[in-house]
Amino acid sequence: MNIAATGNNDDLQIMRDLIRDHQDGFALPRHFYTSQAVYEHDIKAYWNHNWIWVGHVSQIPEPGDYFLFEYGPESIIVVRDRENIVRAHLNVCRHRGSRVCLKESGKAKLFSCPYHAWTYELNGRLRGGRAMGPDFNPADYGLFAANVRVFQGLIFICVADNPPPIDEGLARLAPLTEPYGLERLKIAHSASYPVPANWKLALENYMECYHCAPSHKDYSRSHSLKDPRELEELIAPLKERSVGAGLQPVNLELTGGDAAGPAADIYYRRYPLFPGYKTGSKSGEPLAPLLGQLSGFDGGTTDIQIGPLNNFLAYSDHVVGYRFVPRSMQETDIQIIWMVDQDAEEGRDYDKEMLTWLWHVTSLDDERIIRHNQEGVNSHRFVPGPLAEMEWGIRDFYHGYLRLV
Amino acid sequence: MNIAATGNNDDLQIMRDLIRDHQDGFALPRHFYTSQAVYEHDIKAYWNHNWIWVGHVSQIPEPGDYFLFEYGPESIIVVRDRENIVRAHLNVCRHRGSRVCLKESGKAKLFSCPYHAWTYELNGRLRGGRAMGPDFNPADYGLFAANVRVFQGLIFICVADNPPPIDEGLARLAPLTEPYGLERLKIAHSASYPVPANWKLALENYMECYHCAPSHKDYSRSHSLKDPRELEELIAPLKERSVGAGLQPVNLELTGGDAAGPAADIYYRRYPLFPGYKTGSKSGEPLAPLLGQLSGFDGGTTDIQIGPLNNFLAYSDHVVGYRFVPRSMQETDIQIIWMVDQDAEEGRDYDKEMLTWLWHVTSLDDERIIRHNQEGVNSHRFVPGPLAEMEWGIRDFYHGYLRLV
Amino acid sequence: MNIAATGNNDDLQIMRDLIRDHQDGFALPRHFYTSQAVYEHDIKAYWNHNWIWVGHVSQIPEPGDYFLFEYGPESIIVVRDRENIVRAHLNVCRHRGSRVCLKESGKAKLFSCPYHAWTYELNGRLRGGRAMGPDFNPADYGLFAANVRVFQGLIFICVADNPPPIDEGLARLAPLTEPYGLERLKIAHSASYPVPANWKLALENYMECYHCAPSHKDYSRSHSLKDPRELEELIAPLKERSVGAGLQPVNLELTGGDAAGPAADIYYRRYPLFPGYKTGSKSGEPLAPLLGQLSGFDGGTTDIQIGPLNNFLAYSDHVVGYRFVPRSMQETDIQIIWMVDQDAEEGRDYDKEMLTWLWHVTSLDDERIIRHNQEGVNSHRFVPGPLAEMEWGIRDFYHGYLRLV
Repeated sequence: MNIAATGNNDDLQIMRDLIRDHQDGFALPRHFYTSQAVYEHDIKAYWNHNWIWVGHVSQIPEPGDYFLFEYGPESIIVVRDRENIVRAHLNVCRHRGSRVCLKESGKAKLFSCPYHAWTYELNGRLRGGRAMGPDFNPADYGLFAANVRVFQGLIFICVADNPPPIDEGLARLAPLTEPYGLERLKIAHSASYPVPANWKLALENYMECYHCAPSHKDYSRSHSLKDPRELEELIAPLKERSVGAGLQPVNLELTGGDAAGPAADIYYRRYPLFPGYKTGSKSGEPLAPLLGQLSGFDGGTTDIQIGPLNNFLAYSDHVVGYRFVPRSMQETDIQIIWMVDQDAEEGRDYDKEMLTWLWHVTSLDDERIIRHNQEGVNSHRFVPGPLAEMEWGIRDFYHGYLRLV
Repeated sequence: MNIAATGNNDDLQIMRDLIRDHQDGFALPRHFYTSQAVYEHDIKAYWNHNWIWVGHVSQIPEPGDYFLFEYGPESIIVVRDRENIVRAHLNVCRHRGSRVCLKESGKAKLFSCPYHAWTYELNGRLRGGRAMGPDFNPADYGLFAANVRVFQGLIFICVADNPPPIDEGLARLAPLTEPYGLERLKIAHSASYPVPANWKLALENYMECYHCAPSHKDYSRSHSLKDPRELEELIAPLKERSVGAGLQPVNLELTGGDAAGPAADIYYRRYPLFPGYKTGSKSGEPLAPLLGQLSGFDGGTTDIQIGPLNNFLAYSDHVVGYRFVPRSMQETDIQIIWMVDQDAEEGRDYDKEMLTWLWHVTSLDDERIIRHNQEGVNSHRFVPGPLAEMEWGIRDFYHGYLRLV
Repeated sequence: MNIAATGNNDDLQIMRDLIRDHQDGFALPRHFYTSQAVYEHDIKAYWNHNWIWVGHVSQIPEPGDYFLFEYGPESIIVVRDRENIVRAHLNVCRHRGSRVCLKESGKAKLFSCPYHAWTYELNGRLRGGRAMGPDFNPADYGLFAANVRVFQGLIFICVADNPPPIDEGLARLAPLTEPYGLERLKIAHSASYPVPANWKLALENYMECYHCAPSHKDYSRSHSLKDPRELEELIAPLKERSVGAGLQPVNLELTGGDAAGPAADIYYRRYPLFPGYKTGSKSGEPLAPLLGQLSGFDGGTTDIQIGPLNNFLAYSDHVVGYRFVPRSMQETDIQIIWMVDQDAEEGRDYDKEMLTWLWHVTSLDDERIIRHNQEGVNSHRFVPGPLAEMEWGIRDFYHGYLRLV
């Protein structure tokens, strides 16, 4: 398909005009959040060219185990094949485009299209092609493969032919996250918070803690990010405790010139909880058994970002993953996934209600403030204002986003 | 209104680009099913320039009887006027555009607009024009007439000023369908199956039986179309039985070079039911009295297509009509109308539940597979695949469609 | 933001083409009511450049009292500030655009943004700007002010930098409306009638009484506008009675060449009720105490229009205000506000059910006919018809509208 026919030429011109309007250090103009054309371009040019965290290997332990991951109009089958390799396929039949797999998760020997029964192997290869004539070569019509990276058990996919380079970044991140034993996690709970706003407003909300003090009372009681000045004096003692607990007391920021590529931003940042808090719990007390090789609660937490779309918060006893999944131009699902050690048993080793409390209440706050943000941005009289210093994460996101779209 | 103002120029350019992208023998590109501009162009350039089957004369036996037929944003009044002529009018007041007729069906002496009481005769002529001044000539403001053809009781309309030629095709079809006594039918039941998909995906689904074997267990038990190879040996005996029952054992295909025009495709094709089946019933036994001049059940059925949008399946004892009515870009109503001989009495001569069973269950299947087809086609990574030989009907449809839009 | 980036250039070209298609004395072409681009342009170029009636000073008697007024994607805070001045602010934070004020009405000392706690004075000035660095000047980031005019207690706002001139028109209107004591009104009841139609179809419906006879039985029983010929003989006696009751027996029409500006249309027109009717009641009897300085019921009513978007109907004992508020391209709220003298007490001096009866039933009629108007206009075959003489108000509206968009 040529680029004109998909409207890409027009889209690109619109995007170029919009990008020229953007002033560095300020919020993005209204149209980035209100235009259907921009939204569709976002999926095609940004989401489909970035790495997306879709799940954990513990969800598909055996050959044939699979689950679907969906964003915008896209659906991906994530499956462990007969050779034990984790693969991802576009869930689109190569014949006339039907969804091939309809169940959210399960165990399969083959994927057979419900329309005309074109049948695919777990590795995506087409088995024959019923009544397609002698010139038909099934090898040409396997399911489109998405790129896959499994990083310490976390599964990332990218549907682009040329995904952004991420391997060098992951290699540098690996020793820092290793003590957490991420490959030994299991999913304790998943929740989805639908918000009537563009996905970028939801993501931006996660990227700054300038709003934490006014908007998140519960979070601010335990987490020090609310004011960078208070942070300084807490950091030195945390470093000492971290080393004691088995964590390296360093940060990693691969972005811009340092990063392997424009969208391969990888961060690993430690920051202190307030005194009395061992983890992100209401009481300050532990929520689950210590993770991986950690030898104690050091009173800190770790922000991990792998690519611009995937965020994790690693406490000493659990990891919380965040995604901001576009559904339509102004509909986004905030997806939160709580993970604990695979040997932890609900009821005995952790209480689901207590485990999920903090980020449940915080997400309810966020749903509300993101919604009101979108309502205001919809005004024809909205003029983007200046970003605060604490909003550097948003500025970085804009840089990467505007390079890619 | 000039063409630029309605956006037609842009639409035409977009359509030309899209058409260039289409590869003969393959499915259509994504944008044909996902673009609001293409959808609106479909209504304006395709639906409004094709013949549409709207109903049967038995619905309006007497002068003043009328019913509405609606598709996309269009509404048509189909009425028998005082001279006993079946007419069709655009249901749009010539003053400021209100719907004139609000009831789905009824008996009227006049149509009076509910807004300013402009009043029209059954034949569409405006009666005066209240307080419009001396220069106003009511003769200039009758309801816009749609073209009408009544073929053996079946009513077709086309709102274009120059409808595609259909008369020669109907003349050639007439002797073949005559034994069925179509003008003696009555509607036994109508049902609507809404499907969240573009109308073209719904129509394409009807146009091929490549999906019948995997998708329609009940249909495939009785109807031989599921595999063309099995078909051959059943056809010769059917021909013999057909002659005995009063039907001509020939097929008619007016299309492409043969047809009167690009959109006037007319087909009449006989095909066998499997041994033991007299009609499209669950048991194989008859569902209603024999139609027209038929002298017996010959164990066959007839596919009739009149223009690309209108399909009928004629069994020996009932006729099923199909329409795939666009409601919005990705909302379509599959409408099914079951017809029996006018003298057949429900309860005595036919059981409605049994009569409608096959195409009810088959349509539930179709609703599901068409929905999943649209979901997959929505993917930005959908690439149209090759059509199977059994999908020749779709290829023909594309040819006619792409010539017209 | 340059004009190209907001799509304005394209919009303007589309609008110019559409405007060229319009024939004076006829309805507007379909696209004015069916195009998303035109709708968004309507808000930006028409609503945001016109005066809008938002309420009455009695709603905000004391400093800090405020209410929100919303149309399309816009939200306006109308507030009485500490200096007792009625002000209107865009309800959009100057930081990243969140709604600042979330409650429909209330009493505030400050407006603090719920996202990052940027805090604004009642007069719109930003108080500091938390953690924004030394170069940040709060004076540059006050809430955007909307223009405000308070005319005899009625509050009008306009968000444009250069609002259409209205002061001279209001000065000429003032002596005519003065006897009604509008500044002494209070709101007795408000109601909203959602209609699935473009705002222009709702407004046009109000602007002509050509439809009153066929559509509004209850209205037509008491109000003489249904037929201009009957009107003549009733007008002379009304003039005499008006003078007796304290009203000036003159009309005022400031429009076109006479008016201060294209959008500043101001009308004041008296017309008779039918004999036996003292006010717009079911029985003809009074509904509430006489307004202002009126000394009696003169059996007339007064149409007041202040700018093209704001309509009032002043009876001797109550005033009804109308707005047709756009919500989306084909969703509009008909808002009706019934006002009586501030000293009138519900239950003792007026019965709410009786007070609101006439315009409640009339609006139910209008909801229905406007809906059917939109349905018909949606047809691709709709061709705008000629306006009747009684529809002069619509023609005037088109003139002003087409000059501005």
